[in-house]
Amino acid sequence: LPSKLPQVGTTIFTVMSKMASDHGAINLSQGFPSFNCYPFLMDLVNQYMRDGYNQYAPMSGVPILKQRIAEKTLISFGLSIDPEKEVTVVSGATEAIFSAVTAVVCPGDEVILLEPSYDSYAPAVELSGGIPVYVPLSLPDFSVDWDRVSAAITEKTRLIMVNTPHNPCGYVWTKEDLDNLASLIQDRDIYVVSDEVYEYITFDGRPHLPLMSHPLLRERTFTCGSFGKTFHVTGWKIGYCIAPPVLTEAFRKIHQFVTFSTATPLQYALAEFLMEPSRYESLSDFYQQKRDLFCGGLKKTAFEFTPAQGSFFQLVSYGHLSQASDYALSVKMCQEVGVACIPVSVFYHDKQDHKLLRFCFAKDDELLEKALGLLQGLD
Amino acid sequence: LPSKLPQVGTTIFTVMSKMASDHGAINLSQGFPSFNCYPFLMDLVNQYMRDGYNQYAPMSGVPILKQRIAEKTLISFGLSIDPEKEVTVVSGATEAIFSAVTAVVCPGDEVILLEPSYDSYAPAVELSGGIPVYVPLSLPDFSVDWDRVSAAITEKTRLIMVNTPHNPCGYVWTKEDLDNLASLIQDRDIYVVSDEVYEYITFDGRPHLPLMSHPLLRERTFTCGSFGKTFHVTGWKIGYCIAPPVLTEAFRKIHQFVTFSTATPLQYALAEFLMEPSRYESLSDFYQQKRDLFCGGLKKTAFEFTPAQGSFFQLVSYGHLSQASDYALSVKMCQEVGVACIPVSVFYHDKQDHKLLRFCFAKDDELLEKALGLLQGLD
Ligand SMILES: CSCCC(=O)C(=O)O
Ligand SMILES: CSCCC(=O)C(=O)O
Repeated sequence: LPSKLPQVGTTIFTVMSKMASDHGAINLSQGFPSFNCYPFLMDLVNQYMRDGYNQYAPMSGVPILKQRIAEKTLISFGLSIDPEKEVTVVSGATEAIFSAVTAVVCPGDEVILLEPSYDSYAPAVELSGGIPVYVPLSLPDFSVDWDRVSAAITEKTRLIMVNTPHNPCGYVWTKEDLDNLASLIQDRDIYVVSDEVYEYITFDGRPHLPLMSHPLLRERTFTCGSFGKTFHVTGWKIGYCIAPPVLTEAFRKIHQFVTFSTATPLQYALAEFLMEPSRYESLSDFYQQKRDLFCGGLKKTAFEFTPAQGSFFQLVSYGHLSQASDYALSVKMCQEVGVACIPVSVFYHDKQDHKLLRFCFAKDDELLEKALGLLQGLD
Repeated sequence: LPSKLPQVGTTIFTVMSKMASDHGAINLSQGFPSFNCYPFLMDLVNQYMRDGYNQYAPMSGVPILKQRIAEKTLISFGLSIDPEKEVTVVSGATEAIFSAVTAVVCPGDEVILLEPSYDSYAPAVELSGGIPVYVPLSLPDFSVDWDRVSAAITEKTRLIMVNTPHNPCGYVWTKEDLDNLASLIQDRDIYVVSDEVYEYITFDGRPHLPLMSHPLLRERTFTCGSFGKTFHVTGWKIGYCIAPPVLTEAFRKIHQFVTFSTATPLQYALAEFLMEPSRYESLSDFYQQKRDLFCGGLKKTAFEFTPAQGSFFQLVSYGHLSQASDYALSVKMCQEVGVACIPVSVFYHDKQDHKLLRFCFAKDDELLEKALGLLQGLD
């Protein structure tokens, strides 16, 4: 059977998490919390199961969850959306991204990916016969080079993939970025898939600007969100897609045949949990404490870094210390130092190595301190 | 935005379930139980959540669940499979079907669909650029006409979709069907996606024959299963795909970018629940009682029918009573009689109307009796 994705191997997240567990290393590689979710959220799941909410949810999500997603969008970002016509609940943000890309991309269409980029974007594009066009983000801060984006646009460009706050770089889009994107696509038939799964994790008072906060982008954008990231349940696989009615219609036609619907008791529990805005509004503070703890400790290591603006990832640079490949160094750190991380080259289609490592700081303070102790012993 | 699936509207299941609820009709349309799952299964979910199993499961499923799926395959069907190399846990059988089709089908490939067929098959094929080739099952028993299948095969045929026990017809494949399929594809480069979500629901002592019980089909088949159907939790969206290592590798490359992984606490709970084989081995008896109750009552109606061989659906024929379209009659029955069902024409690409209705009998006995009372009042 010839592979439809010949270039794809086992994801780095699987490889590194397994290596960490095999070597008893502290796992700062794959992006998931080391701590459990709120007990009340589990109480709610338990209650809804007992009450019999175990059969198919409506294809687009249970109405109360769609409504609460609309409410939180208004509360957090001042944006009004129609829960029934613009919100779809799906089986994780990966499915949101996949279904949105599949809804838009036809064979031969070009899709702009800003690199480094999350590993599911290019395969999703390719499975629809699309052609990824890679535009690098600018080192050292990973801002968007708008001249390069503009130069990459052709008659065939159909979609641009955006990710803010950015994984793995932690860059958070500015108002200027939104304006630049809008002016680039306004006279063209180009759509946007915006991966905003870290929407509630930004630091130093920097606001997250949803792409749909820009009126023109609002009309063109599929926004992908994730309760896994926001409520410490990455394993529940409940995400959502917000898009204008016409785009939502196209999106649902795909979702309907990809997974049809998403775990019912988890949807009801999340809907009720969302009633208290402090549960998501407090997330930036919660993670800023962890970022600061982690960056404070990093200062006592030989690594160089700029603190992340958002997400729960911190990049560090080691090019001044060693010319080892980032992949080789990650393996060595996992096996010999006892701390697992992700080599950033895996987020480039051609495995460009900028001598950068990504650490996930969504971990208990104790674990972070233990990891920092091990990293401080390095030279 | 031009639609990738222009012919697709809202699924009949959504339409009829909503109409049933709007009109207070008994909902025998969409296939889901009216009763709750076993309390112990919910106890297990609750326990695994509390124990912290809320983060990403491994991409291919939690190892203990893959192992238990292999064990049940041995216990129920005498077939040995390798849990790590041949089993993948996914977000419902719909995802299993989608990912399997996507793993195999390339633009221009022909895919044989036996009609009537479940509504997700053709869109999955089309999204990969494949061409559905429709072969009707033979009325009145919906057996496979092997001459017609043979005649439909061309140089371009790449895949055949199988469904046994069959939704909506209840037909269960025989050893002869397996042999016929095997001899048709043996010298050709043709794969099989077999939707066997009703594997534990067959009647009158008839065995379910997994396609992979045939040595040649074993090498070519992606078998799609569903815990939703087997454990009365259609809303949990946990399914699986069993396929030989090479096919599983191709399958996982797709699954990885479609949903990546599936709800962790539900996977662990199902794994533990599977330890007691009587929990799935008893399902045929459980549903046979319901089929018999329903068919017993149908005898006192004006409908004609042959009892289903498997699945939790019963077809009835009304052509001798009325020439109304099955769709119009379904709407009327929902709105005026108070019983919702599914018109079988929706399972044909060209909406062929054989004057057949599908009733789901996965309902409490009381509800079935109430529905039968209403149907008996018809003439
Ligand atoms: C789906 S596993 C990867 C989790 C994640 O988002 C990351 O580590 O980047
Ligand atoms: C995914 S909703 C449809 C459920 C079902 O299998 C059916 O009713 O045929």
